[in-house]
Amino acid sequence: MPVDLPGLLSPRPHLLLTPGPTPLHPRAQEALGRELLGHMDPEVFALNREIQQDLRAMYGAAPGTFTALLAGTGSLGMEAGFANLVEPGDEVLVCVNGAFGARMAEMAARYGARVRQVAAPHGEAIRPEDVAAQLGGVSLVALVHGETSTGVLNPLGQIAKLVRESGALLTVDAVTTAGMEPFHMAEWGIDYVYTGAQKCLSAPPGVAPVAISDRALARQAARRTPTPLWYCDFSGLRDYWERQAYHHTVPVHLHYALHAALRAALEEGLPARRARVAALGRALLSALAPLGFTPYVPDPAARLPTVLALRLPPGLDDAATRQALRAREISITGGLGPTAGLIWRLGLMGEAARPAPYRRLLHELEDLLAAPGLCGRFDEALAPLPA
Amino acid sequence: MPVDLPGLLSPRPHLLLTPGPTPLHPRAQEALGRELLGHMDPEVFALNREIQQDLRAMYGAAPGTFTALLAGTGSLGMEAGFANLVEPGDEVLVCVNGAFGARMAEMAARYGARVRQVAAPHGEAIRPEDVAAQLGGVSLVALVHGETSTGVLNPLGQIAKLVRESGALLTVDAVTTAGMEPFHMAEWGIDYVYTGAQKCLSAPPGVAPVAISDRALARQAARRTPTPLWYCDFSGLRDYWERQAYHHTVPVHLHYALHAALRAALEEGLPARRARVAALGRALLSALAPLGFTPYVPDPAARLPTVLALRLPPGLDDAATRQALRAREISITGGLGPTAGLIWRLGLMGEAARPAPYRRLLHELEDLLAAPGLCGRFDEALAPLPA
Repeated sequence: MPVDLPGLLSPRPHLLLTPGPTPLHPRAQEALGRELLGHMDPEVFALNREIQQDLRAMYGAAPGTFTALLAGTGSLGMEAGFANLVEPGDEVLVCVNGAFGARMAEMAARYGARVRQVAAPHGEAIRPEDVAAQLGGVSLVALVHGETSTGVLNPLGQIAKLVRESGALLTVDAVTTAGMEPFHMAEWGIDYVYTGAQKCLSAPPGVAPVAISDRALARQAARRTPTPLWYCDFSGLRDYWERQAYHHTVPVHLHYALHAALRAALEEGLPARRARVAALGRALLSALAPLGFTPYVPDPAARLPTVLALRLPPGLDDAATRQALRAREISITGGLGPTAGLIWRLGLMGEAARPAPYRRLLHELEDLLAAPGLCGRFDEALAPLPA
Repeated sequence: MPVDLPGLLSPRPHLLLTPGPTPLHPRAQEALGRELLGHMDPEVFALNREIQQDLRAMYGAAPGTFTALLAGTGSLGMEAGFANLVEPGDEVLVCVNGAFGARMAEMAARYGARVRQVAAPHGEAIRPEDVAAQLGGVSLVALVHGETSTGVLNPLGQIAKLVRESGALLTVDAVTTAGMEPFHMAEWGIDYVYTGAQKCLSAPPGVAPVAISDRALARQAARRTPTPLWYCDFSGLRDYWERQAYHHTVPVHLHYALHAALRAALEEGLPARRARVAALGRALLSALAPLGFTPYVPDPAARLPTVLALRLPPGLDDAATRQALRAREISITGGLGPTAGLIWRLGLMGEAARPAPYRRLLHELEDLLAAPGLCGRFDEALAPLPA
């Protein structure tokens, strides 16, 4: 008899409004029910080719750009970039304005890089001129597009241009942006980019979609020392994804689900996806502002649309409120590190970025915070958006 | 509309009789249909604790031994051992009698080890006396318990005793054994062991169950240099699995499914699982021997029960026969590297190790090889075993 796990089989679905994982796309959920095939079966290779093609579209990559799923979550995507593109002693410039930039610096150092940092205060974007000032002698630059930990959108296009002119490679964390925000790998000149399946695509966690430029592949092929991380060695990945040779077993069900969710995202189209994120963000702010919630990121241009970071009103008990929501089967997320207790982070990615789930959150908050009118303000602000 | 993928929705289930992945356990398949929760949700932590406890039972680990799922497939399990336990310049002894031993040597070298190899010809087991002769000055020994590529079972108990006496650590690949063959981590003194979910447990691929001894944790904690592989750093894994702190997102659905399959395996019990593997192996050999199939591994004591490696009869067209089986929705596997074209490898792990799937294979072979009586011989030899 299966073990009884509270919540797992609950009649009322648990609602994930966190910065990830996001609620599964129905087609991804359905795909998990498909029968298992082997990682070397022709149907799986056919599926992989479609995934590769769709990832090129999602990332705005040039035709023929190498794309793949890494068999791990987003952090493995981050790691694979440094493992393949850093050799001991390389000068690496890492932009740090939150927890994930800091993680990049940590990983680059572990692979032997001499790490320089360009910092910005939490809640502010990295300034392109600060990057420009540090590019001399740098072989690789690392930047988080959307800082999940603070809700900041960094000016990737501007920074990419500077990096490109310097001749350095650029690795980009698109974990909270790709599939929902504009991403132009080819136009911007990005060399390595990754995301997690469970963010903007609303697929189950466990695979990391990546795209790798020809320049990055050439850099890896010309290494003086082998890539330490065998599991994600670019040439090993190409053995499997381009030459259909065995490298390691891949998580086949997660390929099914990612394929289904990614195809759904491309069918909906980026303009429609951006429109619902923008409308929801505006409506949430309109609804919550009268209670004293304010945007954590002061500069509107630096606000990451997909992770709404809100400073809490004075007197609101962060832990108790989130715990009460949890008891009502809704998860939202607080701050991380220095912002713990200060902010909430509401995920507006993939299937979370729809009116119905947020209406359910506001309905509960109306009760918990004794705030009549919350849902009404939300619905009014949202009026133009279909359910 | 979902993309139409041949085979994925076929009315007749595809049968995986390869050395992995194995057919899903029905409870694992069911678990994939559960709703997604977050990696930091209390139900997921409760599930993780049960998984950790069940992994201790599966591996024969001492109470309190650290166990976890790595968020990747078995090769990541292999890699994490070397990434954490090797520092540049360390003397590492790797036992190589097939493709996976060779992969271990490759990985150890990438992390800076000075690698010594103890070799045995393909199809033969590593000899403990050869290991004993090489142990001087070695800090880590690596051994594959069951060599998937050749169907050889190495004498782990004897080798472990020698390694233990030498003071070196021992890392073991239990990919085709754990959950089906006896494994006594505590009694043998193993320091690091891993498997893949999709082998003996018949869970979906994408997580690698590991167990790590206190000695190995202490070795990692005392490193002169940080573990290069941040994603699987032992201390980072403990942050999540022991201290419930965020490290990286885990593949929650694969945790559900592994939990269900592992619990089912423990409920069935190792003696019953071994008995069905042994009976099936004997029956397959009885049925196929008259056609000229012979065991690839000459020494019966060195035959891996869970991967039956059979030398093909002269004149049998390996590729054409397997392709014809594939057209009938049955996958079996040929040799790898030097054994390609010479052998078949039949997986007798997890849900593959049952009479019904193999009866289906023999039924098709009876037709394809014009070999009347094949199924009859199989059924006769199997008579004592329930369906």
